[in-house]
Amino acid sequence: MGKEPDFSITDLGKCTVQSPYHCVTFVTPDEKIIYNPNLKDILKHRQKKETPPAMEVAGPRRTIYFDPSKVRAGIVTCGGLCPGMNSVIRTLVMELWYQYGVQNILGFRYGFEGLVPRYHHKPMILTPDLVANIFEQGGSILGSSRGHQEIGEMVDALERMNICMLFTIGGDGTMRATTLIAEEAMRRGLKLSVIGLPKTIDNDLMYVERSFGFQTAFSVAVQSIKAAHTEALGAHNGIGLVKLMGRHSGYIAANAALALPHVNFVLIPEVPFHLNGERGLLRTLEIRLERRRHAAIVVAEGAGQDLLIKDSDKVERDASGNIKLMDIGAFLRDKITEYFKRKNKEINLKYIDPSYLIRSVPADADDNVFCSVLAQNAVHAAMCGKTNMLVGRWNNIYTHVPIKLTVSQRKTIDPGGNLWGQVLAATGQPHSFINP
Amino acid sequence: MGKEPDFSITDLGKCTVQSPYHCVTFVTPDEKIIYNPNLKDILKHRQKKETPPAMEVAGPRRTIYFDPSKVRAGIVTCGGLCPGMNSVIRTLVMELWYQYGVQNILGFRYGFEGLVPRYHHKPMILTPDLVANIFEQGGSILGSSRGHQEIGEMVDALERMNICMLFTIGGDGTMRATTLIAEEAMRRGLKLSVIGLPKTIDNDLMYVERSFGFQTAFSVAVQSIKAAHTEALGAHNGIGLVKLMGRHSGYIAANAALALPHVNFVLIPEVPFHLNGERGLLRTLEIRLERRRHAAIVVAEGAGQDLLIKDSDKVERDASGNIKLMDIGAFLRDKITEYFKRKNKEINLKYIDPSYLIRSVPADADDNVFCSVLAQNAVHAAMCGKTNMLVGRWNNIYTHVPIKLTVSQRKTIDPGGNLWGQVLAATGQPHSFINP
Amino acid sequence: MGKEPDFSITDLGKCTVQSPYHCVTFVTPDEKIIYNPNLKDILKHRQKKETPPAMEVAGPRRTIYFDPSKVRAGIVTCGGLCPGMNSVIRTLVMELWYQYGVQNILGFRYGFEGLVPRYHHKPMILTPDLVANIFEQGGSILGSSRGHQEIGEMVDALERMNICMLFTIGGDGTMRATTLIAEEAMRRGLKLSVIGLPKTIDNDLMYVERSFGFQTAFSVAVQSIKAAHTEALGAHNGIGLVKLMGRHSGYIAANAALALPHVNFVLIPEVPFHLNGERGLLRTLEIRLERRRHAAIVVAEGAGQDLLIKDSDKVERDASGNIKLMDIGAFLRDKITEYFKRKNKEINLKYIDPSYLIRSVPADADDNVFCSVLAQNAVHAAMCGKTNMLVGRWNNIYTHVPIKLTVSQRKTIDPGGNLWGQVLAATGQPHSFINP
Amino acid sequence: MGKEPDFSITDLGKCTVQSPYHCVTFVTPDEKIIYNPNLKDILKHRQKKETPPAMEVAGPRRTIYFDPSKVRAGIVTCGGLCPGMNSVIRTLVMELWYQYGVQNILGFRYGFEGLVPRYHHKPMILTPDLVANIFEQGGSILGSSRGHQEIGEMVDALERMNICMLFTIGGDGTMRATTLIAEEAMRRGLKLSVIGLPKTIDNDLMYVERSFGFQTAFSVAVQSIKAAHTEALGAHNGIGLVKLMGRHSGYIAANAALALPHVNFVLIPEVPFHLNGERGLLRTLEIRLERRRHAAIVVAEGAGQDLLIKDSDKVERDASGNIKLMDIGAFLRDKITEYFKRKNKEINLKYIDPSYLIRSVPADADDNVFCSVLAQNAVHAAMCGKTNMLVGRWNNIYTHVPIKLTVSQRKTIDPGGNLWGQVLAATGQPHSFINP
Repeated sequence: MGKEPDFSITDLGKCTVQSPYHCVTFVTPDEKIIYNPNLKDILKHRQKKETPPAMEVAGPRRTIYFDPSKVRAGIVTCGGLCPGMNSVIRTLVMELWYQYGVQNILGFRYGFEGLVPRYHHKPMILTPDLVANIFEQGGSILGSSRGHQEIGEMVDALERMNICMLFTIGGDGTMRATTLIAEEAMRRGLKLSVIGLPKTIDNDLMYVERSFGFQTAFSVAVQSIKAAHTEALGAHNGIGLVKLMGRHSGYIAANAALALPHVNFVLIPEVPFHLNGERGLLRTLEIRLERRRHAAIVVAEGAGQDLLIKDSDKVERDASGNIKLMDIGAFLRDKITEYFKRKNKEINLKYIDPSYLIRSVPADADDNVFCSVLAQNAVHAAMCGKTNMLVGRWNNIYTHVPIKLTVSQRKTIDPGGNLWGQVLAATGQPHSFINP
Repeated sequence: MGKEPDFSITDLGKCTVQSPYHCVTFVTPDEKIIYNPNLKDILKHRQKKETPPAMEVAGPRRTIYFDPSKVRAGIVTCGGLCPGMNSVIRTLVMELWYQYGVQNILGFRYGFEGLVPRYHHKPMILTPDLVANIFEQGGSILGSSRGHQEIGEMVDALERMNICMLFTIGGDGTMRATTLIAEEAMRRGLKLSVIGLPKTIDNDLMYVERSFGFQTAFSVAVQSIKAAHTEALGAHNGIGLVKLMGRHSGYIAANAALALPHVNFVLIPEVPFHLNGERGLLRTLEIRLERRRHAAIVVAEGAGQDLLIKDSDKVERDASGNIKLMDIGAFLRDKITEYFKRKNKEINLKYIDPSYLIRSVPADADDNVFCSVLAQNAVHAAMCGKTNMLVGRWNNIYTHVPIKLTVSQRKTIDPGGNLWGQVLAATGQPHSFINP
Repeated sequence: MGKEPDFSITDLGKCTVQSPYHCVTFVTPDEKIIYNPNLKDILKHRQKKETPPAMEVAGPRRTIYFDPSKVRAGIVTCGGLCPGMNSVIRTLVMELWYQYGVQNILGFRYGFEGLVPRYHHKPMILTPDLVANIFEQGGSILGSSRGHQEIGEMVDALERMNICMLFTIGGDGTMRATTLIAEEAMRRGLKLSVIGLPKTIDNDLMYVERSFGFQTAFSVAVQSIKAAHTEALGAHNGIGLVKLMGRHSGYIAANAALALPHVNFVLIPEVPFHLNGERGLLRTLEIRLERRRHAAIVVAEGAGQDLLIKDSDKVERDASGNIKLMDIGAFLRDKITEYFKRKNKEINLKYIDPSYLIRSVPADADDNVFCSVLAQNAVHAAMCGKTNMLVGRWNNIYTHVPIKLTVSQRKTIDPGGNLWGQVLAATGQPHSFINP
Repeated sequence: MGKEPDFSITDLGKCTVQSPYHCVTFVTPDEKIIYNPNLKDILKHRQKKETPPAMEVAGPRRTIYFDPSKVRAGIVTCGGLCPGMNSVIRTLVMELWYQYGVQNILGFRYGFEGLVPRYHHKPMILTPDLVANIFEQGGSILGSSRGHQEIGEMVDALERMNICMLFTIGGDGTMRATTLIAEEAMRRGLKLSVIGLPKTIDNDLMYVERSFGFQTAFSVAVQSIKAAHTEALGAHNGIGLVKLMGRHSGYIAANAALALPHVNFVLIPEVPFHLNGERGLLRTLEIRLERRRHAAIVVAEGAGQDLLIKDSDKVERDASGNIKLMDIGAFLRDKITEYFKRKNKEINLKYIDPSYLIRSVPADADDNVFCSVLAQNAVHAAMCGKTNMLVGRWNNIYTHVPIKLTVSQRKTIDPGGNLWGQVLAATGQPHSFINP
């Protein structure tokens, strides 16, 4: 059990300032919730006389580290758009301003570029009036960008501007940079609290049960599945094929299929599949069409990459260093079309790729609640001098998680677990498209 | 003025049956509304002692041609999906059944294939219970197909099945076939009323001011523009590019831009444009970015085909015989990307092509009203033995229009007219992207 | 035919200024469309050697009255909220600013109160930046109020502030005040163009075929009918009763019922009904329940006022002077409940009154288009010195209409006409609930 | 710690049948998750050498109790409508039919009335075709009713019809009846598995972290708050007052306010408040209006009942035996109006009560996922012979909970806890409206 996660959080120093936050019950610094609520696991730890791994509970502390009147805070949004970025920005500003009295808040423009002087992006001065209604718009009022920037340059800028708390809203590349910024600031002895608000529309962050925007994303994705199903029904041997987000984890595809159970096949990165053979996808699809004359397929963008790589010898990367996925949607569209052409069967395939239509919407009601509470807790964490951590949620409780831990690996769907079992039951698809 | 349209409608014969329709005010057979309500035009006709062209007003007649108890009606939906098809089907059935007592209604499956025996598509028996809720779903419960079928074969089938009224819901290809069916039936002396319910999401039907589904379509298109605008704002030099429907007429693009006035450039088939040169699209876009750092472009699929054809030597056609448009969206995306690459300016272009997400939605509230009234009037027309006509609307009044007249040419946006002027004013785009 | 409407418009003077508006085809000052497009009516006028009544066509003129650089414009919104107010404000500002170069625009706060000094409501200075996104919110950024203000006082204020064009957005009370302001300004020899943008969610404005917000309103109303239908289905003998807007005209109720044809009974002000007797509403409802076990009823707020007045001896008026309608919704709820209690039959009635949920939404896509074009044309009219008129639409063409004409009577649904006939056909309700 | 909850579940007998369910990882019968994941609490139990309370984990078991080919299942929905009822029904049928092969499923009509012969409600025969699309409609296709029925009579009917598993979907009254049915069936030695699917739109079920429909409900409630805010902004001293569901627990109000942070005051049953005095609601509202000129108030229906009872001497109950709440919304509307009238200040109060508009919508995407998984697990539980339990969720894991435990008390918002603290921070409202 030496591999168990270490959830300990870095503090800038001792909290000695009385919090101005008006609160009935403060969270005590040693409040923790266990990582694994399974009774057997707990009893096993007991037997071994070990304390089970547990996470710090987020929330307001009675004493804080920073004197609010002297705080200058900064906010930056990085990577692709995701529902809820503006909701997070809004609440960070509101909470800092009204609950702690921090009235010196900068919004860096266009991602980490905004922390690098040569881009000449002047920061926005963020006030309650400016941010009051932004949660009703998608995107980020700060703008965003992809790609790495020099850590030293950014810490120079933060130092020069006297930023003492930095909130970074971004994906795993951003979180990796965030942890480097925090470490560099520590090395320089800066009193800089660096707090991540993890943004991954794919919901693939380790030790974090839900990431903001994810729920909105799969909810909006449902519209595309509905369109695919309608198109499939509207033509003889109609096939609706939808490509959804999900580079390494199929949560969006899986949940969208559970939410709109007209889907017949869900393909996700975690579960390999074959196209050919008696139990391959193509033949299974053919059987479905023979029986029902229409079918709907949802494929996560990261699914079946092995099939694609076979046909290709180059691997490309985007500005953030992510491997450029090859287009499984177009690939499947072509393979399905070929297959039925070869069999001389007329089909009507409609391919839908809603990407930006999903990324750009504002957070839905529940994600707005989630973003608000996440951001409130990020402010609490920063005020009491936590750093190099992000705010997550576990067992429905908001927690502090060391960033390093979360970027070490990805959260994925367990092909033998509950969620995938529920999807298989809801779609009725076979457990595998692989010949024995 | 010999070129004026002739709106006279073919009747199967004299109306002698007392209508069972329960109505306060029946429409008299000679009720007409003039085509051109412009006062000067009317006075000009007066001077020439001519009657200005006018259309028959649709609506219930006191005496009808068919004995409802003996009527067997058929409905067929053809071509691509369009919002409102199910609303039209529903009201046709309800009106026939409850208002006229026609309780023998067939729905032919998968377009005109359903009228050709060798496809073995068994017709659906349509009843009020079956259709009661279908307006809440997109698509067509009958299914649809593209492509021509042999007219004689279809009329054979109609004759064999004793169909005495056929309602065809489809685009201009369908209307052309509809008129041939009507003529063939006349030639054979069949008592077959053939009534078109014109379906063109592009709203490009001549002598018809509005086609069903069009309003829903541009309303849903607005979401894509919103996404494009949000993405454009979310990145430095962000460009959102949206391709919308509109093969020959830019109504969807124009109205969507008026509905969501964040659009900066609208490109439609009726207004040619240049890419290059000081007043070309690319340079104009560059100036816009320099001033505002983001831009949203809407392009109708039929825009700029001349630019594409220059680069290509083949012209393809789809199953319905329509020339396959070349992809202006992808073309523009590539040209814009190249242009700024050449200029060494970083841009962030997001391209959105929502096609099926628009076609597959159900009719919105106003289109539901429109579909209902259209279908009610189609039933009235069929019951009184009209044939070879479609139900349209003109000056907000529902009218009978000879199908032949409507397929002779297309309704397009007048580049010197009001609508285009309103779009130019709303977007602020230059009147042309063409060097003098 | 001496009673025919006189559509002549008042001009402040001769248009001598070259319009800066950039346009391909200007509207010529004598362009008109006829009021009644019915062919018979036109021929009747011809026989009598009369010119049929016709309305000025709205749109940009080549020469205008005001020098844009000297214009100071004012905008005011009055009465209850209505979808589209912000869209109208936005386009007025954009069109004045960018198309004509008028950069001096005031927004008066809280209706006519904003023109009366003792309320101390400071006007807003309206700029493109301020109004760019407001069409996405419901309500009016200017605020509104009900109730009369002294005409002289308001004209004093306009004179003092050098306003030369005033755009009033409001209902019939507002239009009555608008015409008085225009007349008083004329009397004083002021060069003040007063243009109305008629706001009536009920769509009851005479000589205007559509008023802004109306379509959005009945579209949103559909949600309430859906709720009522669902509740009715969800219980034994379930009755869903929805009260919708419609003081004197039942357009919202009629169109909402056509849009969601689950409605069984529509009650509107134009069609009186009885509760009691074998053919009264209550017994008819009972028969419906016996047959189907659920029913949905839509009642316009102005329906059945005669039934209410019988039980009451006082008539109240609101701040705008409108007679306070008595609550037909609650009245029907109680009468229906009593009736079935007396008959000892269990029913489950759910009463829904969505009022503010409808009034406060932003304009939908089509209403946004409509508001934009309406406002563009209002600016054109003001710039060429028209006054005491409103911008309407007739036969799908935007027109100038003298305000006086429109406030003389109300547009109502003809109980013997097409629309009501369509509603009766769609709902299947009896033509009357009145015993012979 | 003798008061700790006892989560042990009743089994009908030993599971000996091999499950036909096709699954990678079955849940073992002894799998449990702890009730309280707090580390300190766990260590406290360790010290006392006690096992901390833990719940059975739901999911498919390798061996089951019933032979699927002999199972006849029944479903009943009771109480008021709630989003998701149809989703639950759909998945119950699909899971029974396709995953277990149970093809004999009855849907009892109109709640428990459907189990009582004298009501003559014939059960529906539920099949996959019938239920395939019902999740897209609100309400319950089975219909519902309120009020108690005789337990013995119902068990007689179940016995007579050979029902061996009964799924009850309903609120706390229904759960109380469900437990009595289960006990009576045990007493009679019937092999009847009785499984509850708790339906409480208020989310007030003890030991269950989320109830279906709740999230949809507060999401839809947001529209009403938006309307209230818009109306408040649109008038001078505008006040928007919204009454939301929440008889004993303010979860809907609290979450809706977090989701749409334009709310200034949230009033819930758990937090008493005063109207009068310097720190009472009325004076606080007045101060807010003086500063901002508009305000939005959300009140849960169960809030402030003490204030109402003071003015009233009778307590009424509905058919389900719930105390009829007095109308706090109308009460506040009147008190606020009076207060400002007395102070001679003009206000514009708009009161919105959206009740049925919320209850009748279909489940949103996330609630659809939740309903699906809930229903899947209910089928698993029934198949392995569990009874007198409901399926809940705890720490994001689906669990079995003895019904008795859940109906003993209500889950409420802790006025000193996190959620209420988050609401106070988001609204900025004072921590109490009570004078010291």
